[in-house]
Amino acid sequence: MKITSANVIDLRVPTSDDLLGSDPFHTEPDYSSAVLHLETDNGLRGVSVVFTIGAGTDWICHGIQDLTQLVIGSDLEDFTTSPIKLYKRLIDHHQLRWLHDGVFRMACGAILNAMWDLWAKQEGKPLWKLLVDLEPEFIVDHCIDWRNIKDALTPEEALEILHKAKANKATREQQMSEIGPKAYCTAGWLGLSNEQIIATIQKLQKTGFDTFKLKVGQNLEDDVARIKFTREAIGPDQNLMVDANQYWGVDEAKEHIQHYLPYNLKWIEEPIARDDVLGYVELSETFKDASFKMACGEQGASPVIFKQLLKSKAIGYCQIDAVRVAGVNDVMANILMAAKYDIPVCPHGGGIALCNMIQHYGMWDQIAVSGHSDTQLVEYIDFLAECVEHPVATKDGHYVTPKAPGWGLEFHSDFLADHTYPTGKVWANRPPEKCGARFESPPKH
Amino acid sequence: MKITSANVIDLRVPTSDDLLGSDPFHTEPDYSSAVLHLETDNGLRGVSVVFTIGAGTDWICHGIQDLTQLVIGSDLEDFTTSPIKLYKRLIDHHQLRWLHDGVFRMACGAILNAMWDLWAKQEGKPLWKLLVDLEPEFIVDHCIDWRNIKDALTPEEALEILHKAKANKATREQQMSEIGPKAYCTAGWLGLSNEQIIATIQKLQKTGFDTFKLKVGQNLEDDVARIKFTREAIGPDQNLMVDANQYWGVDEAKEHIQHYLPYNLKWIEEPIARDDVLGYVELSETFKDASFKMACGEQGASPVIFKQLLKSKAIGYCQIDAVRVAGVNDVMANILMAAKYDIPVCPHGGGIALCNMIQHYGMWDQIAVSGHSDTQLVEYIDFLAECVEHPVATKDGHYVTPKAPGWGLEFHSDFLADHTYPTGKVWANRPPEKCGARFESPPKH
Repeated sequence: MKITSANVIDLRVPTSDDLLGSDPFHTEPDYSSAVLHLETDNGLRGVSVVFTIGAGTDWICHGIQDLTQLVIGSDLEDFTTSPIKLYKRLIDHHQLRWLHDGVFRMACGAILNAMWDLWAKQEGKPLWKLLVDLEPEFIVDHCIDWRNIKDALTPEEALEILHKAKANKATREQQMSEIGPKAYCTAGWLGLSNEQIIATIQKLQKTGFDTFKLKVGQNLEDDVARIKFTREAIGPDQNLMVDANQYWGVDEAKEHIQHYLPYNLKWIEEPIARDDVLGYVELSETFKDASFKMACGEQGASPVIFKQLLKSKAIGYCQIDAVRVAGVNDVMANILMAAKYDIPVCPHGGGIALCNMIQHYGMWDQIAVSGHSDTQLVEYIDFLAECVEHPVATKDGHYVTPKAPGWGLEFHSDFLADHTYPTGKVWANRPPEKCGARFESPPKH
Repeated sequence: MKITSANVIDLRVPTSDDLLGSDPFHTEPDYSSAVLHLETDNGLRGVSVVFTIGAGTDWICHGIQDLTQLVIGSDLEDFTTSPIKLYKRLIDHHQLRWLHDGVFRMACGAILNAMWDLWAKQEGKPLWKLLVDLEPEFIVDHCIDWRNIKDALTPEEALEILHKAKANKATREQQMSEIGPKAYCTAGWLGLSNEQIIATIQKLQKTGFDTFKLKVGQNLEDDVARIKFTREAIGPDQNLMVDANQYWGVDEAKEHIQHYLPYNLKWIEEPIARDDVLGYVELSETFKDASFKMACGEQGASPVIFKQLLKSKAIGYCQIDAVRVAGVNDVMANILMAAKYDIPVCPHGGGIALCNMIQHYGMWDQIAVSGHSDTQLVEYIDFLAECVEHPVATKDGHYVTPKAPGWGLEFHSDFLADHTYPTGKVWANRPPEKCGARFESPPKH
């Protein structure tokens, strides 16, 4: 199977109109994705997305378009024989690597994830099943970039983790084919009222959810009031977490978090900058006797950052993201390192279609790496699911096990056309001050 | 003065033909820059560059072009009244900030640096002089983003550092107007022979240099032989450093560096990943009795990374870069943090025209922040200087104090036209496999 052409689509949804997805920094996000379609000579299409929140999706599209030159004309078999080879051609490109993480690494991830999608489709398996069926030796020798992480996890340790899980894999796969990973949901977007939040929670509770998250950050008094209100509304036994989206400095984080102590929270997410490893170490030490631990990772730019957060035990929950790093290969490394340090993998969800991807990682982790479902939670976002042909679904507070081949990321063609930026009908007549970089809505400082 | 329009130019020089600039990862770099021209209604032009090594310059150009929307039509005075306001409009843009560091932060830096250039030109001062003349209170209140760094340096501590230097500023400025910062040069690019290296060193020694750097990384035996050869050639008293450009993991770095102990090296540069703070802490501890310390920073993506490297004393030399972070504002923060922890600021140079920028930071640091020149070294690259109207120059192993207003980054128009990618005459007929992303030359693994 040969890759014959590529199509990169700038897909944006004006979710800012409803303040869905809002937090202290990202006050009016338009949930968006750089969508990659890799076409082949046998009719299969490889799909991936890089999730963004509006402006800047075009930057990532530009990068992906450039990188497609490195796969068009290649055979899928060149990839499946040893995926790390393409990974290194991209990430270690002798000139492009100067671009660092961020846009560059996300664009590399788009290419890799679309190739993994094609591979899974060729095998007729959902992505998680493809991963679960890989031999431990293949993963260690042909999927992982070991250059920067061996001081945290050696190839031998990774093999040991994978072989240990393999012993029980058939049973775990059977269990998780019936019910997927446990899910949780952010009910408390910053722009919403208490009434809206509680309505969301009640709706979710009726479908089996018992774990909820609130956005905090800007105003201590308001935040504590909201935490208190929500805790009282859900009762003492359900799980409650908060997410500050990196709004604070280290000392400021301590001041705020100190006031959260009475509310039996499960985790404090991104209290400080995504890569402030020493800051996370300090916070974990300060609050070592609290009910909660620190959670971080949705903006962890590379396995080097994850390595440090895990090795130092600075975080108690490892929030991998499917599209922030360089695709399946980097995420595998992050999940394996989390297993070594016994830290639950709780993937970061979002829209558009990010949840379609992360559910596969939850499955792989819980079947074939950590090999259990005792402590993990996979984020679930309850809007925009219907934009794809295979929407994620939940039942009894768990993801419904995905069955479609690949990631299950096929967008409805009308949705794609209508929301293509800036020419689709949703955007064509929108005022410029609500579009792209000119849509300014600075956070309070 | 109003910003009326912007022009973004993808400027590339095929330095890979001579292997100048080569190191273990960047085996065949084409020294390049995304060049920004901001035009104004009074005829002044604000110029900045983001240095790259070839492929990917277009990614940064795309980003800069997008961001120019946020300054075109604005008055320079909006900026000069409080530069941090524009900084936050860019870096904290509620949607764009999802793009993270790397391309996004570099593009923000391009905008900010061009505005600083205009300001200096309006005042008729070289950039360093504009910075030296700023009041400490203005720097602390209107230039620095304090959000993530206050646990390492408080505004009060920054004021104290600046006021202490201010007491002696007139004398220091007088001294440095006669002779600029001490320079050093990389003689040992990886692609060069011993004979080429020694010829370069001898040429530089004749002009007063006594400090040289070699590239290492791929092959322990070859590297040690080259270090030994160079040390013997320059004698025991001159300074010798090595640079591994992040080629190793932590344990591998220890193995290699152990063999460098006999050669009285001054620093080991980028032995491991640019953001592996805990790795740097470990290496510093391992080699605490050695002649050398760790050096890092040219790819430090943000002040959060610098904060950690400095606060933990993981590095002994702080290698700021002029264009990797968000412009003057971020670099000011990095230099002030280095002063607090008494770690010498040794800016990273390179081409194209990067040395034109870093010399101003060396001046500012040595006059107005650390207030001395006892320990600092500013990197100097001895090729491509003539591409601009005001080339950097050295005398007696020091930079010649820059006198031109602004950064002194005005390119010769012929050079700019000939090297514009992909249409300039240097590129128009070059084979595609030696151009852009398709120019593949993977490092050895």
